[in-house]
Amino acid sequence: MSLIDVQSRADHRGIPLDQVGVAGLRYPIVVQSQPRERQHSVATIAMSVNLPHHAKGTHMSRFVEVLSAHHDHISLKTFPVFLKDLQVKLEADSTRVEISFPYFMERIAPVSRARAFMDFECRFIGEMRGEAHNAIQEVKVPVTSLCPCSKEISESGAHNQRGIITIEVRSKVDEKGYPALIGIEEIIAVADASASSPVYALLKREDEKYVTEQAYDNPAFVEDIVRNVASRLQQDSRIAWFRVHAENFESIHNHSAFAVREWARSIDQ
Amino acid sequence: MSLIDVQSRADHRGIPLDQVGVAGLRYPIVVQSQPRERQHSVATIAMSVNLPHHAKGTHMSRFVEVLSAHHDHISLKTFPVFLKDLQVKLEADSTRVEISFPYFMERIAPVSRARAFMDFECRFIGEMRGEAHNAIQEVKVPVTSLCPCSKEISESGAHNQRGIITIEVRSKVDEKGYPALIGIEEIIAVADASASSPVYALLKREDEKYVTEQAYDNPAFVEDIVRNVASRLQQDSRIAWFRVHAENFESIHNHSAFAVREWARSIDQ
Amino acid sequence: MSLIDVQSRADHRGIPLDQVGVAGLRYPIVVQSQPRERQHSVATIAMSVNLPHHAKGTHMSRFVEVLSAHHDHISLKTFPVFLKDLQVKLEADSTRVEISFPYFMERIAPVSRARAFMDFECRFIGEMRGEAHNAIQEVKVPVTSLCPCSKEISESGAHNQRGIITIEVRSKVDEKGYPALIGIEEIIAVADASASSPVYALLKREDEKYVTEQAYDNPAFVEDIVRNVASRLQQDSRIAWFRVHAENFESIHNHSAFAVREWARSIDQ
Amino acid sequence: MSLIDVQSRADHRGIPLDQVGVAGLRYPIVVQSQPRERQHSVATIAMSVNLPHHAKGTHMSRFVEVLSAHHDHISLKTFPVFLKDLQVKLEADSTRVEISFPYFMERIAPVSRARAFMDFECRFIGEMRGEAHNAIQEVKVPVTSLCPCSKEISESGAHNQRGIITIEVRSKVDEKGYPALIGIEEIIAVADASASSPVYALLKREDEKYVTEQAYDNPAFVEDIVRNVASRLQQDSRIAWFRVHAENFESIHNHSAFAVREWARSIDQ
Repeated sequence: MSLIDVQSRADHRGIPLDQVGVAGLRYPIVVQSQPRERQHSVATIAMSVNLPHHAKGTHMSRFVEVLSAHHDHISLKTFPVFLKDLQVKLEADSTRVEISFPYFMERIAPVSRARAFMDFECRFIGEMRGEAHNAIQEVKVPVTSLCPCSKEISESGAHNQRGIITIEVRSKVDEKGYPALIGIEEIIAVADASASSPVYALLKREDEKYVTEQAYDNPAFVEDIVRNVASRLQQDSRIAWFRVHAENFESIHNHSAFAVREWARSIDQ
Repeated sequence: MSLIDVQSRADHRGIPLDQVGVAGLRYPIVVQSQPRERQHSVATIAMSVNLPHHAKGTHMSRFVEVLSAHHDHISLKTFPVFLKDLQVKLEADSTRVEISFPYFMERIAPVSRARAFMDFECRFIGEMRGEAHNAIQEVKVPVTSLCPCSKEISESGAHNQRGIITIEVRSKVDEKGYPALIGIEEIIAVADASASSPVYALLKREDEKYVTEQAYDNPAFVEDIVRNVASRLQQDSRIAWFRVHAENFESIHNHSAFAVREWARSIDQ
Repeated sequence: MSLIDVQSRADHRGIPLDQVGVAGLRYPIVVQSQPRERQHSVATIAMSVNLPHHAKGTHMSRFVEVLSAHHDHISLKTFPVFLKDLQVKLEADSTRVEISFPYFMERIAPVSRARAFMDFECRFIGEMRGEAHNAIQEVKVPVTSLCPCSKEISESGAHNQRGIITIEVRSKVDEKGYPALIGIEEIIAVADASASSPVYALLKREDEKYVTEQAYDNPAFVEDIVRNVASRLQQDSRIAWFRVHAENFESIHNHSAFAVREWARSIDQ
Repeated sequence: MSLIDVQSRADHRGIPLDQVGVAGLRYPIVVQSQPRERQHSVATIAMSVNLPHHAKGTHMSRFVEVLSAHHDHISLKTFPVFLKDLQVKLEADSTRVEISFPYFMERIAPVSRARAFMDFECRFIGEMRGEAHNAIQEVKVPVTSLCPCSKEISESGAHNQRGIITIEVRSKVDEKGYPALIGIEEIIAVADASASSPVYALLKREDEKYVTEQAYDNPAFVEDIVRNVASRLQQDSRIAWFRVHAENFESIHNHSAFAVREWARSIDQ
């Protein structure tokens, strides 16, 4: 006996859907950002396809089947294969995948050289329409910001706080359709260099002195941080588009200050 | 003695910012959705302006001053005045405000007629660029969805679950520039009619029987729910654009199913 | 025709339940903390009763009915009546209610005297067993903390950050069984005085100078903050028990530092 | 030059602290639940020690150093060594560690035998006071619950929904002080057997029919689920104490129903 396939029935309302899929799915992944480094992580995943106006529904279980075949080798390099597999298996014109996961880097304290892991929330967003492929890489980098105004007007001290810099980048694509690869570590380095100081998982007393003084010597408004990041990313010829969002969890308020800059490279740049 | 105004200094990196402002600010508000009904609520607010490339920073405290003048009369009708005040006070070309808040409606149980309040997360997003004004109204409506496939293939029963329908609408603007007003209650009614059943804050036993049977008699995939909502909104001539997102917290999975439809009225419609 | 009351059936597993009820219920409330001040807010509520081993289930809808009768006059003073109503309506020996809500106070900036509202997350937890009544009042107060170690070892500056002080207090009960009333505002004042500086919703430049210097002049570890609060609460003879939890969102790390102190007044104090 | 150790100074307020430490720290871990199975995951960690009244502060960086030495072999079996290392390194009488992490199990669909991973939020909580050691293992298991009342009173169908069963257990300790080991998989199995149906990451159509009918044939109130779990755990002689919390995300309401049972084995059992 075969069960009725309700999803495959015709729909007569004439309304196509932009996306149909699964969301909030947690899955173990192995992610590759650098050529010779594979990292285990835990992802939260959304996967979807478009649905033509005449089809009643999609087959949700196939998303998880395709994911199961790809979860142990996630990278921007192999993303087009993942998207293509979804396209074929779901019989769809367009597919979209969002994979969010914490990525860890070993941080070295600036003076003591003590080492510990620190987490960075990352997200890969990929889309395929027909043969056209497109991907965005997002990295959230926690940093220290120290207020230039507070420093200048105060007798001593200056309010400072943790902030989060969110950098989204889209790479240029070469003539064969391959996007330029940009490592998560490279994006983190841009953010670190653009704030008052990086933050760390492990600081000994001599390191604390160092980062306190580094932040005091490098005051930056949230506006400055975004401009510092933007300025660096514009100079990176591998990047076709970016969006930078910086948010400071103000230590003198119960709310945040934020700034945003979106930019696309013009064709002749 | 006057304190130095660091924010007003010149900036020489040549990078304008799309948005600079405050976020995560919680504030008491009084919101008006229907002509004669004002409701107290608690909002989470983001407010921003653009920043030309030559200015170092904006004056963050002014956002809160403008909000303080408007927080007790928030509505889509008065939104342009709020945005204009920000524009003037912050000396900016463009301004953007997002106000998120729970909105309560008294729900009447279908059989017992018992009454209790139920919450709906709402968001008003307004933008002003020069004199051009634009607003989106978002309402999240919790509903019941019952799976048509599960119903059809099973001997008895059918899996069902809570879902959230998120409806964003932009109104048409009349020749004087005023947007057509659409009440939060009207948007909720569209969502309620598009799922397997509404949900309630208070149901007696006879009501539970009613809604169980109503859901069983109205099975709907997440795809159907989005199409049902889209179909209704397209017929509402006050609406210029909408985006519908439905998410089911599947009772048989530990993840969600979702569908999305975005639509804009063509000029001749 | 009357519907079968499944919940009222007997259960034979011999296992009583400590709590049965509803949670995650959002409801509009009017809360009273000071004698002549009523404030609208939005609460998230959990209500439960015990269930004897012989009863199969409780009647969940009655919780919402009792809440509907009390939501517009919530205070610690009237809490026993709310709990008693639940006890009677649910035919239970013991009842428990948790009401969490943001509470707003107008803050006055220290120099400019500019005014704006700031939010404080509060929670009332009440229990009634037979005739015995018991309540805890919790207030979360955002503050600034400035690190004494960082200040002392650094050439200039000192890392500082937003922190949250969570204070839970249980009042002494007088001979008639009434708990001593302690206003939310009083608890906030204790927290404000125990950190490096209060935080504000609105600060002008002259205020920013003031709070920066105030914080720099009052460095406090998270340990100090808890001890400062504890020391003040111990001296308040209305308080029978407290728990203080302070958490600093470290500006030099991507994690928090925290400290906890729980204390009960001995009978002869 | 050596930097001043501010934390080691004396404190004169006479107030000891119950806990001082770090929280919200994310770290990669390798966790072992079964004898021959090691699993990579990402943890959120809190670590603390007590602080005597005479000490000003603790040395926060040492927590991360101890964690770095243990993060790649986390298990309840090795927990006492972790706690002891903290005790020694922080020179404290008592230590406490909470490690929260998602744990994945491959689920096999009941009919198609299709396989996919599903996540379960787990938490290990360990305490050491002097030589006395104590640990709690918590597992959150998503399940399906189907309402017995709704089934009985309705012509057809029954409301059902996803729920979460949270099980905390403390093992009996043998004469050498070692706690009985209970695998995460065993706790999940208890929860699965106590609800209307387990939930899955991947179900084909024939599986969906199976689980729909299984749930319909096994209706259970949130009260029943807690009692079913409690009844099974009481019979497991390795368990000294447990707490069961079940929460249903009601499909007909916008709030949850919940029930709780806490139990300790008496000495002669």
